[in-house]
Parts: sequence; C-alpha cells; structure tokens
Amino acid sequence: MTAELDFSRGAAFCEGRFVPIAEAKISILDWGFTRSDVTYDVVHARNGAFFRLADHLDRFERSLKVFRLAPPYDRGQIETILGQCVVLSGLRDAYVAMVCTRGRPRVAGSRKPADCDNTFAAYAIPWIDVIPLDVQARGAHLWIASTPRIPAASIDPTAKNYHWGDLTRGLFEAHDAGADTAVLLDAEGYVTEGPGFNVFAIRNGEVLTPDRGALEGITRQSVLDVCAAAGIPARIAPLRADDLLDADEVFCATTAGGVMPASRVNGRILSNDRPGPLSLRLRELYWSLHDTGRHATPVNFDDADHPFKT
Amino acid sequence: MTAELDFSRGAAFCEGRFVPIAEAKISILDWGFTRSDVTYDVVHARNGAFFRLADHLDRFERSLKVFRLAPPYDRGQIETILGQCVVLSGLRDAYVAMVCTRGRPRVAGSRKPADCDNTFAAYAIPWIDVIPLDVQARGAHLWIASTPRIPAASIDPTAKNYHWGDLTRGLFEAHDAGADTAVLLDAEGYVTEGPGFNVFAIRNGEVLTPDRGALEGITRQSVLDVCAAAGIPARIAPLRADDLLDADEVFCATTAGGVMPASRVNGRILSNDRPGPLSLRLRELYWSLHDTGRHATPVNFDDADHPFKT
Repeated sequence: MTAELDFSRGAAFCEGRFVPIAEAKISILDWGFTRSDVTYDVVHARNGAFFRLADHLDRFERSLKVFRLAPPYDRGQIETILGQCVVLSGLRDAYVAMVCTRGRPRVAGSRKPADCDNTFAAYAIPWIDVIPLDVQARGAHLWIASTPRIPAASIDPTAKNYHWGDLTRGLFEAHDAGADTAVLLDAEGYVTEGPGFNVFAIRNGEVLTPDRGALEGITRQSVLDVCAAAGIPARIAPLRADDLLDADEVFCATTAGGVMPASRVNGRILSNDRPGPLSLRLRELYWSLHDTGRHATPVNFDDADHPFKT
Repeated sequence: MTAELDFSRGAAFCEGRFVPIAEAKISILDWGFTRSDVTYDVVHARNGAFFRLADHLDRFERSLKVFRLAPPYDRGQIETILGQCVVLSGLRDAYVAMVCTRGRPRVAGSRKPADCDNTFAAYAIPWIDVIPLDVQARGAHLWIASTPRIPAASIDPTAKNYHWGDLTRGLFEAHDAGADTAVLLDAEGYVTEGPGFNVFAIRNGEVLTPDRGALEGITRQSVLDVCAAAGIPARIAPLRADDLLDADEVFCATTAGGVMPASRVNGRILSNDRPGPLSLRLRELYWSLHDTGRHATPVNFDDADHPFKT
C-alpha cells in the first residue's frame, strides 16, 4: 500500500500508520496542541545511520516521565518506527523526530490529563540546519534577548517541550536588531540557551556552557566528549551575558546543525568577525566522531516492507 | 458538498474549508504545534446567539498583535466563519474557538517567524464546562499548586496562548491531592489563575480578583459588570494564597462554564462546604445578563448555504 505513496519529502508515522509528511497531522483538539501538553526528541541520521540513538531514546523516556506521558508503543517499537520512517523517506541524512502528545480524554467532558489516551507520532524529513549553512560560514550573529527564559520551576527545560513563546519573542528581538538568532538569559541574568540550541563560550582556551535553564543537549555532550578526548579544557558552569560578550569565541550546538560558530554577539565582533579557530576545530572533531561509528546505529534500507504493523 | 458531511459532533473551518470536527487537523510541522506559536480565543453561543462576540474578537486582535500573528482573513470574514461553524454544527449552545497559528516558512529552511504563512482555523463544538456541572453543584475543590505560573515577562498571560505546561503540572498536583482543579501563584506568591479560568475571592461582601498573571477574562468582566449593576463592591486587586484560604467564598469564572462556585481550597472548607450565597447570586446574575440580549449576536441558522467562500 505504502509503495504507491510519495515519501520523497519525508515520511511520518501518525495515528498508527505510515504516511507522507504532508499528511502527518494532529487533531486541533489534541491537548498536545491546545495545552502544548507534549514532549518530543530529535535524532539525526547521517550517512544512513542514526547518531547516538540510544541517548536520544533515553532522554525521550526521561521527558515522558517528567510530563507523565506514556506513548502506546514501547522503546523497541519506537526504534523500529523511527528506522522505518527513514527507510520510507529514502533519506540518508535526516532529521528524525519522535513526539508524544497528551491526546484527548477517553471520558467525555473530562478535564483530567490522566483520562487521556496519549498519542505517538514520528517523522523523518530532510536534514535541517537550525542556523543556515551560509550563516554558519560567516559566523552567526547572536542577540542576547531581553525576554527572560521561562523558569525551570514552571517548565523543566531539561525535558524537551514545545513551550517556545519566550524563544520566539527572543527571535523577533534578534531579527528586529538585524541578528540571526537569539540567546535568552534567565530572570537572574544567567545565560540559558537559544531557540533549538545550546550555547558555548570559549575564553583563554577553555570551553564553557551554561549550567542552568538549558536542555542537556546530546550534541552538547558530544562537544564535551570530543573536548575530553582531545585534552581541551571544558566545563559546565554559570555564564552571564558578559561571558558571551567578552568571549574569545562563541558557538552553538544542536542535533540539527551540529557545532555552529558565531562571530558576533549583540553587534560585538568576536574572533575577527568569523568563526573562531577552536570552534572550527570542535566542529571538525564533532563530525569526525560520526566517522568512528562509535555512536552509529545503521538504518536497514533494504527493510522496505516495514515489518512494524499496528 | 458539505450537506453530505456529518457535523453533528462539531463543525470546523480548517485549511480553507468547512469540515466535521473529527477532520480538523493541523500539520505536525506547523510552528503553532512545534513551537506553540499560536493564539486563540473562545466565545460561546447560548440559545442560538454569541455572547459578547465583539469583546472576544477585540481580544483576539490584541492577542494577534502581541504575538505578531496575522490570519489570512479579516475580522468580518472571521465573524462569518464562526457563525457558519455554529450553523453547520446545528448547536444552539456551543463552545466556539478561533485559532491562528504561525504556520510554516514560505522560504525553505527559514527559521524566521516572519517568513511563515500564518493559518486560521475555527470550530464550534458542544458546550464545555471547564468544571463539570456535578462538581459545580457541590462546589469545586481547588488546590493552590506549588508550580509557579510562567511569568508575564516570558509569556504575556493577557494574550491567549497554549503555554499550559505549568497549569498542567498544577492540575496533576491538584488531582494527586484529590482536588478538582488548580490555582497557580506567581513566583512572588500572588494568586494568578487556574487552567482555563479566572479566580475570585469574596471577603466581607467584597468581590476580589487578581490584578496580575491572569487573562483579562471576558467572563471576569461580566462578573464585574453585574457587580456594578447590582451595587456589589468588586475590585481587581493583588491577592495572596491566604486571601483564598481565608475567604468567605471563592469562585471561578470562564467562558466555558460561566460562574463556577468552589467550596474548598487546599482542603479548607469555605461557605459550609457548598457554593456560597453571593457566588450563587453572581451566577444567576451572569446568566440573566444573557437574557437581556445586550451582548447577544444572534446566529442565523437559516444561513445553511454558508456564503463564506475561500
């Protein structure tokens, strides 16, 4: 059946079946939409293999626990579904998302999250760079927004969520100022993260990334891993706006883009207005880590009959 | 064409056409979902007429401005669409929502909200009581949650949004404690609102509702209006947890439920463990306000050919 469908722009698993990405939709009444009561994770495939898939699945499970969500599929089934989305899409480099929403109440009229049947969806679409490649090439221009990040006490930033209103407001501030993207501080003035990425500062050869208000990024972990392997000092530490403004180099890190160098923060020029040397080295080390195969889970592209039945 | 469709469970306008509510869906890639970059409003129809429709449309326009969203339809068209949803549903008492999402970028790969084509959807479904009627009858048991409300500096609570993660967490706290629903405080300990309603305290005959961290509810306004008309003192003022716990009466107010009395707060019994007398009087005055026709916009149920064409 699926053989007749066009998955070339992406393949999704939605409402229990595989569909082209254009048909992947959720009900306008799903609390995942009307209450942003949803969690997700994104893993990437590179050269036909998932990268750090187990880490992403581990984090997805932690996020599910935080939000008290339970998808109707177990970890093994989810892994099969993700693989099948990539197979159907035919994409060897892909952005692969898994999503669990609260769904809708089983009990008519109930307003209790516990009465809802949670839903699961997944999709594989062409690779995305959170900061476009041409911008990465000259170094991203970051903007420290005045909008404060939603506090961890209200929404746990280590559990992936779609509460992006503060990040969107920050993005508008950045674009209004002619910058590429935003970095948000918390109410106490500490650096947290940007829309979809962790941020790093390099000072005197040391690599620093915020200790609060941010996702515990898996790409962030890869950066710390390659630093450790290469003997580059790196630390998770409190950072303030001045630590970015006065840094020798700044870069961003995320699954959808990898290590992405910056060259300006609030108009202030860093590393001669181009990607800094240590940022470039870390980018190279990050991609080299893929070549080792250490974190690779190959996708079986011959498996086009998608054994996963619902 | 639509004559063949079954709109009995609700009618929606979605992606430019009228569909049964079960078919009203949004793309899993719409930023309205993946970034909760969306605003909405809810108006109710009672006995075949919208109540305070102009006030809801005014607020929707203000919310759109706050989030820099622009639906592809103007106010007159939106009013027509809302009416048509009610007509198609055949519901004389209805919960009627209008929703504008950021949509998806026109420019492939763009991460800029300004590059997105915003979408508009609307739907009419059977009347909802945010607090079920049987619970209203004995008085709702409220729970002052320990999760703080997302601060206004991060997300403007006066612009309607789906950032409900804090409210959901509060709901879980309430349900875990055996209560019906939650009320959230801000980080400074001031009362804000609950999941989908404003909260009121009555002390010594005076009606009080929070001055911060809450939606400027249109039902809240109706309560203040009927108080003014009836000579009942009422005030928008800072309230702390103790102001609820020590109140003579407490009630909640929202479009989807009207005036909803409470009888307990964190297990503490108010007004003899039942809806208080002034709360009940305000509920009666609120519904009487509908009968005056002052705020009514009748729906033309003969208009089944839905003149709105896209």
